[in-house]
Amino acid sequence: MTFAATVLTLYPEMFPGPLGISLAGRALAEGKWSLNAVQMRDFATDRHRSVDDTPAGGGAGMVLRPDILAAAVDSVVDDVPILAMTPRGLPLAQARVRELAAGPGVAILCGRFEGFDERIFEGRAVEPVSIGDYVLSGGEIGAFVTLDACIRLLPGVMGAASSGMDESFENGLLEYPQYTRPQMWEGRTIPEVLRSGDHAKIAAWRTARAEDDTRLRRPDLWERYCGARARSPSGARRQTKEE
Amino acid sequence: MTFAATVLTLYPEMFPGPLGISLAGRALAEGKWSLNAVQMRDFATDRHRSVDDTPAGGGAGMVLRPDILAAAVDSVVDDVPILAMTPRGLPLAQARVRELAAGPGVAILCGRFEGFDERIFEGRAVEPVSIGDYVLSGGEIGAFVTLDACIRLLPGVMGAASSGMDESFENGLLEYPQYTRPQMWEGRTIPEVLRSGDHAKIAAWRTARAEDDTRLRRPDLWERYCGARARSPSGARRQTKEE
Repeated sequence: MTFAATVLTLYPEMFPGPLGISLAGRALAEGKWSLNAVQMRDFATDRHRSVDDTPAGGGAGMVLRPDILAAAVDSVVDDVPILAMTPRGLPLAQARVRELAAGPGVAILCGRFEGFDERIFEGRAVEPVSIGDYVLSGGEIGAFVTLDACIRLLPGVMGAASSGMDESFENGLLEYPQYTRPQMWEGRTIPEVLRSGDHAKIAAWRTARAEDDTRLRRPDLWERYCGARARSPSGARRQTKEE
Repeated sequence: MTFAATVLTLYPEMFPGPLGISLAGRALAEGKWSLNAVQMRDFATDRHRSVDDTPAGGGAGMVLRPDILAAAVDSVVDDVPILAMTPRGLPLAQARVRELAAGPGVAILCGRFEGFDERIFEGRAVEPVSIGDYVLSGGEIGAFVTLDACIRLLPGVMGAASSGMDESFENGLLEYPQYTRPQMWEGRTIPEVLRSGDHAKIAAWRTARAEDDTRLRRPDLWERYCGARARSPSGARRQTKEE
């Protein structure tokens, strides 16, 4: 089955862009996903092909009109989740990426200017999604993020060896640090345990480092991880033992 | 002054890509920023131009070698912050974007495969940065995110009208919802207050909506915002009045 990506944008010429190269590009060429980049202006109704107008209540910038957005969505989107990239959205996270990648595809509305008329989120099943706590010049780069994250999880894209299950966020932790040759670099060596060949010891070290780094760098993730562990049956057992 | 962006990547052909179009593309053409996309393989020392090797301790994928990364950084980076895109990094946020955009430029290391040998973060002043809690096939899209967020803030890029100070994250809140014409769309009207012409009322409504949406959608941001407000002198006054 081909994962069908539809992008609604004022800059269809940006696509596939980086998604046409490397891992995502090979998968596109092999038909593992398809891409339809749609010009939103094609759904304008005036001769200037306007898609936006000034913000009600005043302020700088322009706002994308709900009627044009709805016409575009109604014409090109068929039975896939519809995301709109906006800093007002819910943060994209790996669990949602896995859900999307397991489905038939995704449609992504790319905002520009001051974003979307809010009524599009009430009038259509459009999900506001944010890729992070910063502001970009448009939603296109957010579409690259969302699609790249999904595409690498599609069957056969990463190959059997990398399921992606050992990565950051999959178990609620950051991934452990990695090392490779040279053995000694500028006086710094690879941690001894990684050269021991003792798989159980290596696994324990990696878990401990993943936990340490998550606690230090991402107290938000760490708090959630500890909460989930305390609530799970195995976590409860562990807690009892510790007490 | 030109904001100098240096990107170290295995796919220099991905650049400028989306950053060559629209707002960032115009700014690039006008010399408001410059881009140097550097092939990391040029710093390999063997005839296969290898930049990576297998993970110490085992596991799937390949890890970027610290000696090659350091050689690349030492050759092309001069007195700008050096970021490495990795899900293990500290989350990129608008405050850091503002700092970067106010400086002379930035260098960005783009990981592929299983990422970077951890020693590069000790051996050079490389800052691990994550754009969000998901995993991508490489750091290049993270570089687009970081650069686009910076470029739009450079002097003259957005124009005088949009300082960007009214946006999501700038005051710790999501931005208020936007509306535009048509006045009535599928039975949904623009909120009455936005058509009142009463600027004080509009500003109060927008603040209330920004607070509501932040509280409902982003309890994490809301908690931080309330903490900051309680600690500030004006916030303390407001609290006293409420009590």
